[in-house]
Amino acid sequence: MMQGEIIATGTELITGRVADFNARYAARRLHEVGLTVGLITILGDRAPLFGELLKQALGRSQFIIITGGLGPTEDDITVATAAQALGLRLYQDEGLLARIRRCLEEQGLPWEERYAKLAVIPEGALVLDPGGAACGFALRHRDMRLFFLPGVPREMRVLFDEFVLPGLVEWAGGGEALAQRTVRLFGISETQLQQVVSELPEFQHGVTVGIYPNFPENHLTLTVRGQSREALEAELNRLIAALSREVGDVLLGPGEIPLEELVGSLLRDRGLTLAVAESCTGGLIGHRVTNVSGSSDYFLGGIISYSNEAKLDLLKVSPEILAAVGAVSAETALAMARGVREVFHADIGLAVTGIAGPTGGSPEKPVGTVYFGLAAPSEEDVWHYLFRGGREEIKTLAAQTALDRLRRVVKK
Amino acid sequence: MMQGEIIATGTELITGRVADFNARYAARRLHEVGLTVGLITILGDRAPLFGELLKQALGRSQFIIITGGLGPTEDDITVATAAQALGLRLYQDEGLLARIRRCLEEQGLPWEERYAKLAVIPEGALVLDPGGAACGFALRHRDMRLFFLPGVPREMRVLFDEFVLPGLVEWAGGGEALAQRTVRLFGISETQLQQVVSELPEFQHGVTVGIYPNFPENHLTLTVRGQSREALEAELNRLIAALSREVGDVLLGPGEIPLEELVGSLLRDRGLTLAVAESCTGGLIGHRVTNVSGSSDYFLGGIISYSNEAKLDLLKVSPEILAAVGAVSAETALAMARGVREVFHADIGLAVTGIAGPTGGSPEKPVGTVYFGLAAPSEEDVWHYLFRGGREEIKTLAAQTALDRLRRVVKK
Repeated sequence: MMQGEIIATGTELITGRVADFNARYAARRLHEVGLTVGLITILGDRAPLFGELLKQALGRSQFIIITGGLGPTEDDITVATAAQALGLRLYQDEGLLARIRRCLEEQGLPWEERYAKLAVIPEGALVLDPGGAACGFALRHRDMRLFFLPGVPREMRVLFDEFVLPGLVEWAGGGEALAQRTVRLFGISETQLQQVVSELPEFQHGVTVGIYPNFPENHLTLTVRGQSREALEAELNRLIAALSREVGDVLLGPGEIPLEELVGSLLRDRGLTLAVAESCTGGLIGHRVTNVSGSSDYFLGGIISYSNEAKLDLLKVSPEILAAVGAVSAETALAMARGVREVFHADIGLAVTGIAGPTGGSPEKPVGTVYFGLAAPSEEDVWHYLFRGGREEIKTLAAQTALDRLRRVVKK
Repeated sequence: MMQGEIIATGTELITGRVADFNARYAARRLHEVGLTVGLITILGDRAPLFGELLKQALGRSQFIIITGGLGPTEDDITVATAAQALGLRLYQDEGLLARIRRCLEEQGLPWEERYAKLAVIPEGALVLDPGGAACGFALRHRDMRLFFLPGVPREMRVLFDEFVLPGLVEWAGGGEALAQRTVRLFGISETQLQQVVSELPEFQHGVTVGIYPNFPENHLTLTVRGQSREALEAELNRLIAALSREVGDVLLGPGEIPLEELVGSLLRDRGLTLAVAESCTGGLIGHRVTNVSGSSDYFLGGIISYSNEAKLDLLKVSPEILAAVGAVSAETALAMARGVREVFHADIGLAVTGIAGPTGGSPEKPVGTVYFGLAAPSEEDVWHYLFRGGREEIKTLAAQTALDRLRRVVKK
């Protein structure tokens, strides 16, 4: 089993000012393809330990990924220290220098002498050039591969995805290609999902599965390896079809598209408009729906009916219902959905009313009780859940559940 | 300068399944008090390297914080490995064993033989017992201090705050006490804030300042050290008063209280009610306001007027205004604020209308143009901004700006 390690440098990391992104991202992606990271080391800029740590790494790892310290300032000593540790001469790469001048020009920035440092790399280095963004470089040293990447997460990620991961996979697999896909699921626990995956016959060989909790969803990444890119894509389709057969509507459409975007596409495709009546979610459903660019095509708006007066006056919930069964009830949820549908002249009205807590619960209606209503041309629907968690978690679960039911209804 | 390092163990960390919390938290808190962390090492459970890395750390650091691997399973080898590296004998601590039995009883859990392992610690270890939660332990080894903490972030944080940080500060400062306070600021850039802090006479000596960007706010942590706890609290008050004099209303009230909670307290204190009319924020203001428990005392609700019809029908914006100056205008913002105030019979109406992008901009009203309206008994207010960023950033900035102006108006 090929094993490697990651060294992340940056004073902002070692002082806790920002969270590490690079090492975690690389570790996760490598783990998905079955490459083991044995160690992550984080240290500051200009850390005296860097050279020593790099030498230790050379003695035990087959690949080493180093991020940060490639910039033009005096703090950026990664290249010089690494060259010394590896016993390599530094030289100024003319091609890289020309590329840096070109980049600056394109961005309308003046040349400064300190940028020349960016083109100084160890002999034998292969420049990793993603075009239009910061470069890194790779080195072969004895039987090892070393990758030097920028510390800015956006830049690091581009180079990692384009060069490091495919390069390591090809090397480790003797020329194998790799294909990956992530799907989102809602309404299934991590444990249930693990159970499903462990039992599905299609998942028993040749696929690596990673499950990542992403409250309130679970994300699942599938990785397959083989010779032909087309065969791998077909294999991924086959796996996802098998998963879909098993878990059904719990699988949120294709790929990594957020739920609110899936719902939006479905509404647009079917030419339907939406209005929302939000009590305990307080505007969160509207916020999520309008996070999608172009949502004004199908989203007409909503009423945040936090007070009972708003439910009566604006949503035309009858005072008899409120008096008889209260604001948190199936009857009120349905009346809110009908009301908002009518007020906005929308095709679909979606309503939520519940107790987000931590106060306001009762033995009959404990904190976390949420009623939902949906009024559409073809059907009306009322349902409820008892959610666990703090106030924000209950709001999040309520909004997600409402949007998810809307997705299922519109998809039919 | 005292220097230390952190070793975080956990397979979930080294595979990138979850982000490291513990090492970053410890590094940040230590940096705030002027204690340097030179190295963070992350490795898996049962990693063969652990013992070797610990020995290296013993040779160069004055304090070492180790998290994870203290549990009852076979994967939890931190204690045994560390004892071996330090040349210490393990023994079963009867006091700790009794405490574990008591904890299990209190939680209604049955005793299992494997829990006995939790009471096996190295000779000379001092048990860190926060009462009612997982324990850790501390060791003195030659001139060094070692701390062994659980890997669960919630448990680690309790022990770190209660024992590790005060212990290290006292040790490093020869018995000094420590006081810290964090304040939130909105409407000042990180660079401007650094400038202010570097020039304020009160901040020139005896205070450590940490600035943490927390979009859309900046958080600032002040740390002072000295002999008397009361004197330190007085010093912190003096520093915050000086900062407040300099930056004024940019300082969001006392402590770490979120903006929506500050606004809520002000509204409650003054007996005022609020209703919101949201266009481009799509419900985000209502969502934030209702994240505060008890917000139904002052928040009546809102109208998400995404369509022009909603602005006309529900908020009574006149068709002439919409035709003449459009939905994104000062006139419409004010009419929306007045409209929502009237519809909800609220004391204050707050309105936002703008272009969140990425489409919908024009040369006169580019993406990021947002108009705000506020209608209160004592005053009416209209203002606008041109924000930069993506769709979600513009929504976030618009909601924050609206709530912040509301805070300033209600505070008067």
